[in-house]
Amino acid sequence: MRSKLMEMLESRKDEMIKIRRHLHENPELSFKEEKTANYIADFYQGKDVEVERNVGNGYGIIVTIKGGKPGKTIGLRADFDALPITEEADVPFKSKNDGVMHACGHDAHTAYMLVLADCLIQLKDQINGTIKIIHQHAEEQPPGGAKSIVESGVLDDLDNIFGIHILPLAPAGTVGYHSGYSFNGRSYFKLKIKGTGGHGSSPHMANDSIVAGAYFVTAVQTVISRRMDPMKAGVITVGSFDGKGSFNVIKDSIELEGDIRYSDDDAKAVIDKEFHRIVKGIEELFGVTCELTYTSDYPPLYNDPEVTAFVAEALKNSKDQDMKEVVEFPKLSPSEDFAYYLEKIKGCYFFIGCTPKGVEKPYFNHHPKFDIDEDALLVSAKAVGNVVCSYFEQENA
Amino acid sequence: MRSKLMEMLESRKDEMIKIRRHLHENPELSFKEEKTANYIADFYQGKDVEVERNVGNGYGIIVTIKGGKPGKTIGLRADFDALPITEEADVPFKSKNDGVMHACGHDAHTAYMLVLADCLIQLKDQINGTIKIIHQHAEEQPPGGAKSIVESGVLDDLDNIFGIHILPLAPAGTVGYHSGYSFNGRSYFKLKIKGTGGHGSSPHMANDSIVAGAYFVTAVQTVISRRMDPMKAGVITVGSFDGKGSFNVIKDSIELEGDIRYSDDDAKAVIDKEFHRIVKGIEELFGVTCELTYTSDYPPLYNDPEVTAFVAEALKNSKDQDMKEVVEFPKLSPSEDFAYYLEKIKGCYFFIGCTPKGVEKPYFNHHPKFDIDEDALLVSAKAVGNVVCSYFEQENA
Amino acid sequence: MRSKLMEMLESRKDEMIKIRRHLHENPELSFKEEKTANYIADFYQGKDVEVERNVGNGYGIIVTIKGGKPGKTIGLRADFDALPITEEADVPFKSKNDGVMHACGHDAHTAYMLVLADCLIQLKDQINGTIKIIHQHAEEQPPGGAKSIVESGVLDDLDNIFGIHILPLAPAGTVGYHSGYSFNGRSYFKLKIKGTGGHGSSPHMANDSIVAGAYFVTAVQTVISRRMDPMKAGVITVGSFDGKGSFNVIKDSIELEGDIRYSDDDAKAVIDKEFHRIVKGIEELFGVTCELTYTSDYPPLYNDPEVTAFVAEALKNSKDQDMKEVVEFPKLSPSEDFAYYLEKIKGCYFFIGCTPKGVEKPYFNHHPKFDIDEDALLVSAKAVGNVVCSYFEQENA
Amino acid sequence: MRSKLMEMLESRKDEMIKIRRHLHENPELSFKEEKTANYIADFYQGKDVEVERNVGNGYGIIVTIKGGKPGKTIGLRADFDALPITEEADVPFKSKNDGVMHACGHDAHTAYMLVLADCLIQLKDQINGTIKIIHQHAEEQPPGGAKSIVESGVLDDLDNIFGIHILPLAPAGTVGYHSGYSFNGRSYFKLKIKGTGGHGSSPHMANDSIVAGAYFVTAVQTVISRRMDPMKAGVITVGSFDGKGSFNVIKDSIELEGDIRYSDDDAKAVIDKEFHRIVKGIEELFGVTCELTYTSDYPPLYNDPEVTAFVAEALKNSKDQDMKEVVEFPKLSPSEDFAYYLEKIKGCYFFIGCTPKGVEKPYFNHHPKFDIDEDALLVSAKAVGNVVCSYFEQENA
Repeated sequence: MRSKLMEMLESRKDEMIKIRRHLHENPELSFKEEKTANYIADFYQGKDVEVERNVGNGYGIIVTIKGGKPGKTIGLRADFDALPITEEADVPFKSKNDGVMHACGHDAHTAYMLVLADCLIQLKDQINGTIKIIHQHAEEQPPGGAKSIVESGVLDDLDNIFGIHILPLAPAGTVGYHSGYSFNGRSYFKLKIKGTGGHGSSPHMANDSIVAGAYFVTAVQTVISRRMDPMKAGVITVGSFDGKGSFNVIKDSIELEGDIRYSDDDAKAVIDKEFHRIVKGIEELFGVTCELTYTSDYPPLYNDPEVTAFVAEALKNSKDQDMKEVVEFPKLSPSEDFAYYLEKIKGCYFFIGCTPKGVEKPYFNHHPKFDIDEDALLVSAKAVGNVVCSYFEQENA
Repeated sequence: MRSKLMEMLESRKDEMIKIRRHLHENPELSFKEEKTANYIADFYQGKDVEVERNVGNGYGIIVTIKGGKPGKTIGLRADFDALPITEEADVPFKSKNDGVMHACGHDAHTAYMLVLADCLIQLKDQINGTIKIIHQHAEEQPPGGAKSIVESGVLDDLDNIFGIHILPLAPAGTVGYHSGYSFNGRSYFKLKIKGTGGHGSSPHMANDSIVAGAYFVTAVQTVISRRMDPMKAGVITVGSFDGKGSFNVIKDSIELEGDIRYSDDDAKAVIDKEFHRIVKGIEELFGVTCELTYTSDYPPLYNDPEVTAFVAEALKNSKDQDMKEVVEFPKLSPSEDFAYYLEKIKGCYFFIGCTPKGVEKPYFNHHPKFDIDEDALLVSAKAVGNVVCSYFEQENA
Repeated sequence: MRSKLMEMLESRKDEMIKIRRHLHENPELSFKEEKTANYIADFYQGKDVEVERNVGNGYGIIVTIKGGKPGKTIGLRADFDALPITEEADVPFKSKNDGVMHACGHDAHTAYMLVLADCLIQLKDQINGTIKIIHQHAEEQPPGGAKSIVESGVLDDLDNIFGIHILPLAPAGTVGYHSGYSFNGRSYFKLKIKGTGGHGSSPHMANDSIVAGAYFVTAVQTVISRRMDPMKAGVITVGSFDGKGSFNVIKDSIELEGDIRYSDDDAKAVIDKEFHRIVKGIEELFGVTCELTYTSDYPPLYNDPEVTAFVAEALKNSKDQDMKEVVEFPKLSPSEDFAYYLEKIKGCYFFIGCTPKGVEKPYFNHHPKFDIDEDALLVSAKAVGNVVCSYFEQENA
Repeated sequence: MRSKLMEMLESRKDEMIKIRRHLHENPELSFKEEKTANYIADFYQGKDVEVERNVGNGYGIIVTIKGGKPGKTIGLRADFDALPITEEADVPFKSKNDGVMHACGHDAHTAYMLVLADCLIQLKDQINGTIKIIHQHAEEQPPGGAKSIVESGVLDDLDNIFGIHILPLAPAGTVGYHSGYSFNGRSYFKLKIKGTGGHGSSPHMANDSIVAGAYFVTAVQTVISRRMDPMKAGVITVGSFDGKGSFNVIKDSIELEGDIRYSDDDAKAVIDKEFHRIVKGIEELFGVTCELTYTSDYPPLYNDPEVTAFVAEALKNSKDQDMKEVVEFPKLSPSEDFAYYLEKIKGCYFFIGCTPKGVEKPYFNHHPKFDIDEDALLVSAKAVGNVVCSYFEQENA
């Protein structure tokens, strides 16, 4: 089956590109991907699969491919939402939707997956198990789509799950993997510090919230520098210090907002606890009142070491001419809601290089000029296809 | 002449009140006091004095009263601008000019001064010298009117200068004085701190301007706490910390604005130097770029001790039944552009109590509910009138 | 009586100097002034006065001079202890007591007072009241001698109290006074911050007390810069940060010690409250434990305005050729236990210039090279003598 | 050869233990290991090897085992110095050298290595290459012995190098490896901050070095929290803040000392640069003078990924009953001067579990109660022996 699948994918490379360009021209924001979802559902029209729509908290689609023989069930996920970014990439298939752009490559994820799914449907008699294609909405905006899809129960029967992300960290042809914690988790905070306003010349009649906020910012540094295990990653960014006022009036309250990252659950626990302590400490230190909103969204993404070893082995053994290199990738600092699947189901989320040919310093995902080498589409399809083949071969053994 | 003058003032108490209420109903902002200036000029119409209009950088008016005999020349100043405050005081003569209010008492200053000037004009043959009435515009808004009036040269012939401010620190009937430094000086700063923006998860790829700004705020505290002579007054208020941004984006630049106060020229020199040092230090400490605007406006107000002793003596000796008490007042923390006159001309700026009868905790100047006991008008006129009488008697001796 | 007294003092100027030099050569530390006390007591041997020894918590001596007629009772205080300083002044009567020095001028205070007292004893029939000479031990070391002398009750019958300090702020011949708060009050603190030690490479396994201490030092600056009335004086000095340890071991606890000054009781109340708040805040902020010792010793010294006005008047009217100038002095930042007398008894503590002739930048009190113009002895005696004469004349009136 | 070697090692397990206990009873401090070095040299007496003594900056010993056929040259390193710790472990062979203890396991390293070396000598005809046994002095005290041994040139002919450390992170029987950066690098700093002393009541006359030091400590936190790549490890510990002084005297200078760790050369470069920037910034910020001593000693230890993969493969393939598990270990936070070898020669430094049987929370290396399961000696010998066998087999292929 493997060689047949690879042949089929090779022959449909142009179709993948066409689909990707169509999606790229018609991006839709998270939770608003109505047309994209219709486009995907239309693709499966008339095919011998079960298609479930509006799964989870949005336009999620689950396509179930039942194999010829009974066996394990795996999930393959591709996300399809876009970002609130105005495209600046100089491509002929530029976004037609002003202020919205597929700047993260989800167009490519969906394009390769549709073609791969179609091929797998055609070859399904040879599959001893079941494959669920997860077309996921809303990856870019917390709470994201993944969590709700997991909670919907439609994946309860999955044994393992796989997915990929294209990244311009390597040329198309390079496939990367990382075992264990691979993406950071993320929390959000909003902190209102309330003091008492007053005249600039009379600090003793007021209680300066800007001063309290400034000491908060300096104190919170110690959570990262002195409380975290240095071997783990942690970030606390105060992205917004909203304390605009009149030069000669002592500001009665300010509002901070920020972004917190952590490499694993232990790091998260430390930051959660110490951040709250610092907030309470500032209240005591300056006699101000703090209102804290603190929410955690995407957890750290954990690739199961055994499953990851299996994936790495499968890719290395495929000896496909399009997958020139299979290498370990470093851990990545962004966050990914694929992490929610992996909290429930052992699996592996891995990487496909996509640096445009001839470009030395590519624009990274989320940049208005983000662009890809479209060869990455075929590589993605082949990589995931090979993992699927090895998976069910293994089951047969 | 003294008893005659006092009698005249007493008989015109109601007129003072009427003028004050008219002005109170028709307040105008600094540098925009066109109608107020016309009203004042009209008052002098047909009187035997020289009236100079549009003096300095606004609607300033100088009225010169030449006495019957030659002698010294003194200035008497009353300011006439109002504040951008919406009146909340419950008075029948409430401001008709929305969002503008005589919340500092300049209406009272002008009202008593017009009547006093008129009386002095009538008695001028008995005066052995010259009196210049300075109706000053724009005291409330730097650069103020006083500096430009001084620079215009119209006061070059003054030997001494006097002025009063009504303050609800005591009941009408109490006159206060303070020798030496009596009001604080003031500086303004705007500080832009420029770092490098970036993604919230990757502080090492950016240079966080909010962090630099927060450490600036904590470091600048030491200018007041460790660099100032503790016996002197100094304040650095960061009134605005404009660092609003997205929670997950590291802010590339922020802007601080603030208000600086100092009790005398030495304190000013220390703050000037150390503030600039801290700014330079923050640049070095964090590798950010700072753009600093730093301007000093009203200097510390210095009442000449000899002139002040003369004023205190004159007031105490007047034994007027309306001036029940002549006492030393504490130093005051606000700033006053009368200070510019006193940089050039020896003089004394003193205080008239105006706490409304029966009120225990009066609203202070600049409060939307600021209100006065109108008896303070007559007290003001009598106090300044007595100083004038004693001044020229002294000259005769 | 006044002219007789002045004559007597003038004729005994050399004796004052001789006594002062004797004391200067034989300085004794606070609470250990046994020989000095004997010397003073010997001086009064055989004179018609009551001498009480060992008053209060040390070698205090009270000498009661009963006048010829009944009347009010006043106290005149001179302190007699020395400092733990090794003298570096180049004088022929250098300290013979290694490491101990009369570097604050208490030798001069005692010398003039003995001679003045002797003269007053001789003239006592002309005095209509009683004079208590207070030879006070231990001014330099808290809790000081004054507090215990007050508490002993021996001064309960005093109507007023006077004292002077020599200061090289002006030449001998200048007498200074300051009304109201004139010396700062003082508190002391010791703060132990206990965290958890650990290996330098593993901050997350420890709780770094040095970091907590450093943030304490930065936060406590705001008590002075933002909580104090800027018109009042306040100082918090962390004089000792005892955190010596091994470079690669996280320190489990540190100890800070410091000195706090305040210009009046309001300022004291603010610092007391806010300092304790900051300590509690640091505990919360870093999860450390703080042990705080916080004691206030000498209060702000308050010269009663009426008594001070009387003193200034008396001095100005004396027209003595040795008191060339009587001027207002600025408020002083040190502390003085004379403040304890003034908490109970209205009085005035004033100043006698003592800058050595021809010296432009004199060494200040407490400097190892502190030296005085010995003319200040006679000026001191005459100044206090004049106040005494005016005081009892006033009583006669 | 492999099975012969394993047999020989098994039969000499007791000898390893005997040697280890002898060394344990006779520990010697870094650079003072004279007797230990003699003991080691004596062991090789009469054996057919070249023994070079006093290599590098101490008692280093290089033993060269020339194989029967030409081939590659590898180094095997065991360190032999002890620590300045008073032993508290309850063992019959407790340290006889008061205050000195083999608390890091170097006794075990040397014991297994001697026996392994002897076996390899006996089997040397079957080795197609050369083995250099590096008995290294002074690992515990910078600059350490490794650097000087590398600089001496005696290892210039090495193709690869191997070494192990026993660690109570796992039971004896577990062998661990980590690819890439595996131990942190280390720097040391001493920072003297010089201000100007003064009286506690007069901060404006002084320049407080404790305040400058405190702000330094707070500012330096940002190097770790905002400048480091969060994916990398970095620590800056201020272990000593020597600012002890009198409570009421402003301290003129303080001295900080500290420990810096970093996971790789990039992290080191960031900390080096930013630390120096902060120091310069503090000079500017407070007008103090800084004297900085900043030295880097042991670099981050980098296990070559290919060599590490080879070692892991060799160990896994050995299927030895004593090596029950071969697993990936986490990165470790301490520092190791084996890193100097790896800067010049590709190699792998790996780990042997040594948790005493039945102990759940073992004391870690450097603890006064540190103890080991002596089975780890045989495991060490077998692990390194297997690597050697595989290495030269590989060469033959």
